[in-house]
Amino acid sequence: MNKNSSNIMALAPNTSKKRETVCIFGTGDFGRALGHKLIQSGYPVVFGSRSTQTSSLIPKDAEVLSHAEAAQKAAIIIIAIQRQHYNFLTPLAEILHGKVLVDISNNLKINQYPESNAEYLAQLVPGAKVVKAFNTVSAWALQSGTLDASRQVFVCGDDMEAKQMVMDTVRALGLTPLDQGSLLAAQEIENYPLQLFPMWKFPMLLSLGLIAFFFFYCLIRDVIYPYVYENKDYSFFIAISITNRICPILALILLALVYLPGVFAAIIQLYRGTKYRRFPDWLDKWMLCRKQLGLVALAFASLHVLYTLVIPIRSFVRWRISSQIVSQALNNKTEPLDTTNAWLSDSYLALGILGFFLFVLLGITSLPSVSNNVNWREFRFVQSKLGYLTLVLCTAHTMVYGGKWFLSPSSYRWYLPSAYMLSLIIPCTVLVVKFVLIFPCLDKPLTRIRQGWERNPQYSE
Amino acid sequence: MNKNSSNIMALAPNTSKKRETVCIFGTGDFGRALGHKLIQSGYPVVFGSRSTQTSSLIPKDAEVLSHAEAAQKAAIIIIAIQRQHYNFLTPLAEILHGKVLVDISNNLKINQYPESNAEYLAQLVPGAKVVKAFNTVSAWALQSGTLDASRQVFVCGDDMEAKQMVMDTVRALGLTPLDQGSLLAAQEIENYPLQLFPMWKFPMLLSLGLIAFFFFYCLIRDVIYPYVYENKDYSFFIAISITNRICPILALILLALVYLPGVFAAIIQLYRGTKYRRFPDWLDKWMLCRKQLGLVALAFASLHVLYTLVIPIRSFVRWRISSQIVSQALNNKTEPLDTTNAWLSDSYLALGILGFFLFVLLGITSLPSVSNNVNWREFRFVQSKLGYLTLVLCTAHTMVYGGKWFLSPSSYRWYLPSAYMLSLIIPCTVLVVKFVLIFPCLDKPLTRIRQGWERNPQYSE
Amino acid sequence: MNKNSSNIMALAPNTSKKRETVCIFGTGDFGRALGHKLIQSGYPVVFGSRSTQTSSLIPKDAEVLSHAEAAQKAAIIIIAIQRQHYNFLTPLAEILHGKVLVDISNNLKINQYPESNAEYLAQLVPGAKVVKAFNTVSAWALQSGTLDASRQVFVCGDDMEAKQMVMDTVRALGLTPLDQGSLLAAQEIENYPLQLFPMWKFPMLLSLGLIAFFFFYCLIRDVIYPYVYENKDYSFFIAISITNRICPILALILLALVYLPGVFAAIIQLYRGTKYRRFPDWLDKWMLCRKQLGLVALAFASLHVLYTLVIPIRSFVRWRISSQIVSQALNNKTEPLDTTNAWLSDSYLALGILGFFLFVLLGITSLPSVSNNVNWREFRFVQSKLGYLTLVLCTAHTMVYGGKWFLSPSSYRWYLPSAYMLSLIIPCTVLVVKFVLIFPCLDKPLTRIRQGWERNPQYSE
Repeated sequence: MNKNSSNIMALAPNTSKKRETVCIFGTGDFGRALGHKLIQSGYPVVFGSRSTQTSSLIPKDAEVLSHAEAAQKAAIIIIAIQRQHYNFLTPLAEILHGKVLVDISNNLKINQYPESNAEYLAQLVPGAKVVKAFNTVSAWALQSGTLDASRQVFVCGDDMEAKQMVMDTVRALGLTPLDQGSLLAAQEIENYPLQLFPMWKFPMLLSLGLIAFFFFYCLIRDVIYPYVYENKDYSFFIAISITNRICPILALILLALVYLPGVFAAIIQLYRGTKYRRFPDWLDKWMLCRKQLGLVALAFASLHVLYTLVIPIRSFVRWRISSQIVSQALNNKTEPLDTTNAWLSDSYLALGILGFFLFVLLGITSLPSVSNNVNWREFRFVQSKLGYLTLVLCTAHTMVYGGKWFLSPSSYRWYLPSAYMLSLIIPCTVLVVKFVLIFPCLDKPLTRIRQGWERNPQYSE
Repeated sequence: MNKNSSNIMALAPNTSKKRETVCIFGTGDFGRALGHKLIQSGYPVVFGSRSTQTSSLIPKDAEVLSHAEAAQKAAIIIIAIQRQHYNFLTPLAEILHGKVLVDISNNLKINQYPESNAEYLAQLVPGAKVVKAFNTVSAWALQSGTLDASRQVFVCGDDMEAKQMVMDTVRALGLTPLDQGSLLAAQEIENYPLQLFPMWKFPMLLSLGLIAFFFFYCLIRDVIYPYVYENKDYSFFIAISITNRICPILALILLALVYLPGVFAAIIQLYRGTKYRRFPDWLDKWMLCRKQLGLVALAFASLHVLYTLVIPIRSFVRWRISSQIVSQALNNKTEPLDTTNAWLSDSYLALGILGFFLFVLLGITSLPSVSNNVNWREFRFVQSKLGYLTLVLCTAHTMVYGGKWFLSPSSYRWYLPSAYMLSLIIPCTVLVVKFVLIFPCLDKPLTRIRQGWERNPQYSE
Repeated sequence: MNKNSSNIMALAPNTSKKRETVCIFGTGDFGRALGHKLIQSGYPVVFGSRSTQTSSLIPKDAEVLSHAEAAQKAAIIIIAIQRQHYNFLTPLAEILHGKVLVDISNNLKINQYPESNAEYLAQLVPGAKVVKAFNTVSAWALQSGTLDASRQVFVCGDDMEAKQMVMDTVRALGLTPLDQGSLLAAQEIENYPLQLFPMWKFPMLLSLGLIAFFFFYCLIRDVIYPYVYENKDYSFFIAISITNRICPILALILLALVYLPGVFAAIIQLYRGTKYRRFPDWLDKWMLCRKQLGLVALAFASLHVLYTLVIPIRSFVRWRISSQIVSQALNNKTEPLDTTNAWLSDSYLALGILGFFLFVLLGITSLPSVSNNVNWREFRFVQSKLGYLTLVLCTAHTMVYGGKWFLSPSSYRWYLPSAYMLSLIIPCTVLVVKFVLIFPCLDKPLTRIRQGWERNPQYSE
């Protein structure tokens, strides 16, 4: 069996003719892995270490010298040492003067220190040109070559030339350097590998809150109410029936919440008469996590589809249908076809299918490799036009679901309306306001404002 | 909550040591956004404007000068002005001589002017080196940093050196420059952001036509016919039954149309005995939109799957089944299991599932990020071998669907055969011709022709 | 209709001011296609050919000269000739001295020759700088511009400067060069376009073996056994029932096999007390194809979902249900709701849905464009935490499926347990061992070992 091409392609030692020596301070895991990779890519490598005796783990073709000796041999020095030990560099300040120091360190917590490790390094060795890089790459991935996660290396630094040298090295290793600007960016770059889906936190917390609320709401209406009044044990509804009530409700609410901030923004811009004032902070943050909100909504919609399609296989449903039929047969009566009912049931299902289909299309378009291949006009067409169509279809699906009993008083239990009715509040609001905003008397000034026109130009001072 | 890393990474002003001043003509939305971004990336920025008084909207660190003064300070001048006002540049021709003028303008319509804006600019200022760039980037995206859509910047220009300078600037802003050749490409580049899925137009129009045809066809057979002869109101069939008849038909026809041009091409090459003559234009165009045809077919197939899985939940289907059972019970009769029927029903479903599964695989492989990771042999294996297997499975699925009644005269209504039978015409033709082409007596010469062999070499003159 | 932007963007001849002449030896298909593309990108092109008479197929703007004359005009010479004819280059050795020879050849079989074509070329013309490139690009794709498959061009060579020149040319053609190191890599690069999903071979063969085993196992239990003892013909079970038994079994076993090597690795590391010794070769290979194993498992899980959702539409199932109901009606008896059964059925379905949902999430995260946008912590969180959760849910799903009859002796036929019970062996083993490994007494030393600690440091010699 052939191995993965990307990690096999032979990389030869000793063949480089022009590459400059790179020095690595520290012979730990990451230092060694980086050394290996550099040698494979044709760079002569010198390790700077306290103990200069070569261990079997250090790449064969690398020299191991004292820190001072090693530093003198190279223009680029990679500091593969933990921040706590940086102060050993202070006595070397003179040798390091003018050298490019590459800080590759990470912290254990977000914002662990007041300043970033790279800035701290720059303070310790003021004469050196500090560049932050490589901290997002894993030692294991470097060695094994299975760079499944990011090949991107964020690079920042105050000296353009030093940064360029480091970026060339990154590129020579087969990785993708991304210039992030000056050393001020180091804090963000150091926090990056510690993040765990920061943009997903708000949608997730919101979903959890809504799930908890609607779970107890449905539990009361669908399990406790029949237990109290009819003494029936429907506790097994928790597994599927109630879940399949929560999922579509959350999908619809979250989808509406994707389009709500846009409506707010339009109202604010209309009210202010200019687009040149910043939105309130909460609105800005909300707008930035719309994609995540939409994807969580899509996840709930997908679950809803699966839970719905599984209905006819449920043993409870089979039992209910067969006992209905048996009682019909015993009572010797055949029901005629209720055409209205057939219409309602079929159009309810058709609306749901079309809504879900468009929703999945939206999801596919938000894949990075797809959205990179469309222009802005196409992106906006999909995310705005198709998005609103999806919202309309899903809202209609929910309304027709209620069918004849929609808003009928008999569906109240303990004065609580059906859960799906609560889920309609936000989507209907969004759709009504959006509908109003489409009217030319509002749409025209809004378009002009968005093209840069200002009602009271003094605002822009 | 942390914000999106890509738009947060601090970018420092005033830290650049080597970057050259960039001049921007025009202080409109896009000019300011680009200026901001340039300053963040370490470029000194000078605005050239009619009124040199600084507005609060212009980035703080930028100077605002008259056009002439600003132009003298920089080698690169970005023209952030609409085409109608370009003529103000004529008096500046002397100052602009030898400068790199970057045309970033867009039009409102495709091919609005006889020549592209960039070429017009080059005519107005003959001494300058005009480069087209940045027109596909949105001002809003530049400012907010949420480059969800393309980071690609198409660049073209006649002067290699000027183009290289602009491409370096693009890269420094974190965007991806794509060299599109000489200034002749400007027209295409200016049309690009105005396009709305141009490659999808033909598949979409074709689908709409086919939908309309098959909708009325099915309406006549399934709703009007029973209404006329049996006086039954099946109008609710429109919502699901008829849709679920149209979707699979379109999926099958469109899938066959993906492979039909390949068959045509093979026949033409065999007939001509050479591969060095161009195909007719319609065939070329058809071959270029095969991917889109296939994806539209996949969309219809997915809808068909959803519509089919929803069948047992439909209230009409439940009513029909329960009335059948009740009548059985009342008649005191139990039907035995019809094994042939079970075989037909099960193999029909199994063929459909396998066909759909392979179809989805084909769809996944056509995602840009997946197809970029396979070599040509693998790509051709999936798109050709697996593609034909999909077509075979789906055609067989449709044939077995007919089951015992396939081609039986009783299924004709008003002399109209079932709609699914019409859908089999093209796929069967494609499969039969392809089957013939596989025979060695045709496959061998075809392979040789495709490797460059010519039957009558004089053709190639 | 507008054509695909990528292959239309006009590329102008004669406008280059700085590009250096490129020479191409050989006027075959690929040579001409490359010549065309080079001219479009502004390179002057000279063809070296035995017969210097221009054919209509050769790009107009290219010169055709004898090999010796052509070679003298350019620094880069592309050898678009088959390996068998390389020896004609020997007499030209003097002229080719110091030139960059680009070997673009491919073989017909993997490892066809003892040394790669590029190394053979380097031996023939020792004074030239040989660079391997372009062999992964198809002539047809170059001409038509529809680079659906890879735009990546693997480049390798011993001379840094020569390699850099070739990589710049590759970039100018709009392709992505990937430096693969020295000429030793040429063998791998030449094998690459001949590969057909090498990483998928093991998962595929394993699946086929398991499918065969479980097919006959189920055939014996579900078709032959009832035929022998009850004389019933259930042969139609092959189409759906048995397939739908094999699919979930394979999905579960393959998913468990994704996590088994990790468990092995942990045990080996704990036993050895160090992470610095290589794993056995089979474990290394196994770990490298975990992604493929997981995706094959996901494919089987998806098929299982489709086969399951289709159950209520099967004519056999409809017959069975209706005959049950009819016999109930005839016997005048209504069964009460069995709550335990309802619980088991519903939670079995709910576990399956959630497991499948997480499984699909894992699949989406393994798409290259998605995994490139997450950091290592996020990637590990998804692939490890969510992966184990998926395995737990799917295993529980299978156990609850057995329900009350799980491990009951009545479910044995010819002493063979139900097939699903066999499928539980590996997942349960993995989960139990993983559960043991989570205990602090094992987890703590393991974590330390993975951070570089060694129990017996002498091992690392």
